[in-house]
Amino acid sequence: MALIFEVSEYQERLRKVKESMLRKGIQVLIVSDPANMNYLTGYDGWSFYVHQGLVIALDYDEPIWWGRGMDANGAKLTTWLKHDNIRPYADDYVQNVFKHPMSFVADILREMGWEKRHIGVEKDNYWFTGQCLDVLREELPQAKFHNATSLVNWIRTIKSPAEIKYIKEAAKVCEHVMKTAIDSIEVGRLESEAAANVYHAMIKGTDEFTGDHPAIFPIMPSNERTSAAHLGWKPDRKYAPGDIVLLELCGVRFRYHCPLSRTVYIGDPPKELKEIADVVIDGIAKTLDFIKPGVTAEEIEAKWREAISGSRVVKPSRLGYAFGLNYVPDWGEHTVSLRPGDKTIMKPGMTIHLMPGIWLDEFGFECSEPFLVTEKGCETFLNFPRKIFTK
Amino acid sequence: MALIFEVSEYQERLRKVKESMLRKGIQVLIVSDPANMNYLTGYDGWSFYVHQGLVIALDYDEPIWWGRGMDANGAKLTTWLKHDNIRPYADDYVQNVFKHPMSFVADILREMGWEKRHIGVEKDNYWFTGQCLDVLREELPQAKFHNATSLVNWIRTIKSPAEIKYIKEAAKVCEHVMKTAIDSIEVGRLESEAAANVYHAMIKGTDEFTGDHPAIFPIMPSNERTSAAHLGWKPDRKYAPGDIVLLELCGVRFRYHCPLSRTVYIGDPPKELKEIADVVIDGIAKTLDFIKPGVTAEEIEAKWREAISGSRVVKPSRLGYAFGLNYVPDWGEHTVSLRPGDKTIMKPGMTIHLMPGIWLDEFGFECSEPFLVTEKGCETFLNFPRKIFTK
Repeated sequence: MALIFEVSEYQERLRKVKESMLRKGIQVLIVSDPANMNYLTGYDGWSFYVHQGLVIALDYDEPIWWGRGMDANGAKLTTWLKHDNIRPYADDYVQNVFKHPMSFVADILREMGWEKRHIGVEKDNYWFTGQCLDVLREELPQAKFHNATSLVNWIRTIKSPAEIKYIKEAAKVCEHVMKTAIDSIEVGRLESEAAANVYHAMIKGTDEFTGDHPAIFPIMPSNERTSAAHLGWKPDRKYAPGDIVLLELCGVRFRYHCPLSRTVYIGDPPKELKEIADVVIDGIAKTLDFIKPGVTAEEIEAKWREAISGSRVVKPSRLGYAFGLNYVPDWGEHTVSLRPGDKTIMKPGMTIHLMPGIWLDEFGFECSEPFLVTEKGCETFLNFPRKIFTK
Repeated sequence: MALIFEVSEYQERLRKVKESMLRKGIQVLIVSDPANMNYLTGYDGWSFYVHQGLVIALDYDEPIWWGRGMDANGAKLTTWLKHDNIRPYADDYVQNVFKHPMSFVADILREMGWEKRHIGVEKDNYWFTGQCLDVLREELPQAKFHNATSLVNWIRTIKSPAEIKYIKEAAKVCEHVMKTAIDSIEVGRLESEAAANVYHAMIKGTDEFTGDHPAIFPIMPSNERTSAAHLGWKPDRKYAPGDIVLLELCGVRFRYHCPLSRTVYIGDPPKELKEIADVVIDGIAKTLDFIKPGVTAEEIEAKWREAISGSRVVKPSRLGYAFGLNYVPDWGEHTVSLRPGDKTIMKPGMTIHLMPGIWLDEFGFECSEPFLVTEKGCETFLNFPRKIFTK
């Protein structure tokens, strides 16, 4: 067992989850999201490509881990759970049209006498498929199913001091990663070589803090590919004069992320790009000045819109989102979004990526700031210059 | 538009998918798996963390791409589709409890007059959640839904010559990656530094072939962590004499993978490890000798069991699986599994990872071979020594 938090911290998280279950009328919660599994038990492995999860019941002390047999030793090594609460299934449940792991979970629920209960499932989570839902409904016809998507994620939204410490360490790694990326963009160099350097920096980390694998790959498109939000580098292409390159990168520390975006131009940036950069950078400063406990997500977005009003910049997509602990495919937490209609009230300990990415039809511009809501306002995790980096 | 295959190859794949739909009584197929999206249209971006997909109808020529607004330019740049068939949704569909992207898909289906049809969904795919299923059922009460999990994946199982070429190039990258990993394991070196070197090799590739991002992170646990199948390196730990290290790695070329596993021991390997290695390596050779078109997946597994019978080696999990084109979280195709009950007949063009990983309670051993079924037998993609590598 090699935990990165005190067992008491995991137990406190579990207590909050049970409190939320109670409020929502959920007696048993099936957790499928690997980040939620890690958050509550410490479980850490690349085994989420098969069905696995936790079962949490209001009247049962520990979560029950369930997963593939070959991963049970991984659960013993990485979680604080008693070994009795680690329940492996036989290998023929894996990707088999005749058997589904949710039948195994139903067996556990029947064995515990929980088959008629109010059961919460992470209904819109990647790791809880339509088939999971139908198998559970068929296996447990007397249960009442509740949509508990993001129930645990909302608990994750407020970070503890120990979590903030890891994100601050991830920020140090992130700074190193961003510098490495900017340094690696050179006329004549293959884009894949720059991306390789970025990965190396991300995994090795700094002399002080080792890194970790990212939940989103390095988003570093060039030129017309910067008109889209989620394209990668182009492996066989070499950088050339006049290139614009977006960098949406991160540092990671024990699965805790710190993301950051910047833009590089090879040569003298065109007037239109500079104008957009000026508006966005000014808008970020004004928005950050506004953020403090008590304001809502939509008020923050409105402040941004006010700051850029009268300019040519239009930003139809959300302005930011909560981030933190995660696995692929997203470092976002799927809770707070900075956009109209999101009435979440900012509280100390929230960590949000202010990400006003601009994607036009010909090119894009990115400059972002991850911030922590503090007692009196907010602070950014990095102090990285906000500008177009030129080479 | 920057495609890595001729448009005719994508169209041929689409034809085969429609043929399979017709056989199964499916008139409209909703594709959620990003690998299937790529396979049929070329679409390539890290945008699958929000709902996106294709709609394919028997009587409509092209697939319809649907996804988030900021990713539509990515679809225009990476697919062969007419721009009319790229259908972006507004940003407030993203992670919003009040609106779901499957309502947008239902809008498309109603607009096309397909709302009463037999509709296939990838029901047990990561990217098709329980919520997707319920929203579709509610939006389209007159439709008949079919489980089309892996329908496209089964078409992918037989690779074209152009695909095999990419996998062979990925194999060259994989060889470089494995050598880099073995070279990087040194007493006193941080595990994260070895992992960073592995990532660098995987992304940069060789002088001949650039690499790409992997669908599974480098699985390279040490010591007691080798008793589990899917643990990673331990960031802050340094290698020490007596370490056993598993390496389950890959090379990637334009999303086509070539996986490979080997085991490293620092020092003189203990007798038990050597005995297991001898049995497994002998079993691999005998199993590969047996494989040819016409034999079934379960017969291959039975041959393996015969080869290791009488030894102390027990292998309760499946012996291998189909691999190829993929995104996170898995390079496996979720079709063929080498195990009892799988009656899939081997055909030329199938690519399978023969992966007899052994995970005991104290340690593990891995040695694997990815192979291609040929006209007369099979050939491995690499010629990497099968042995315990010692340092």
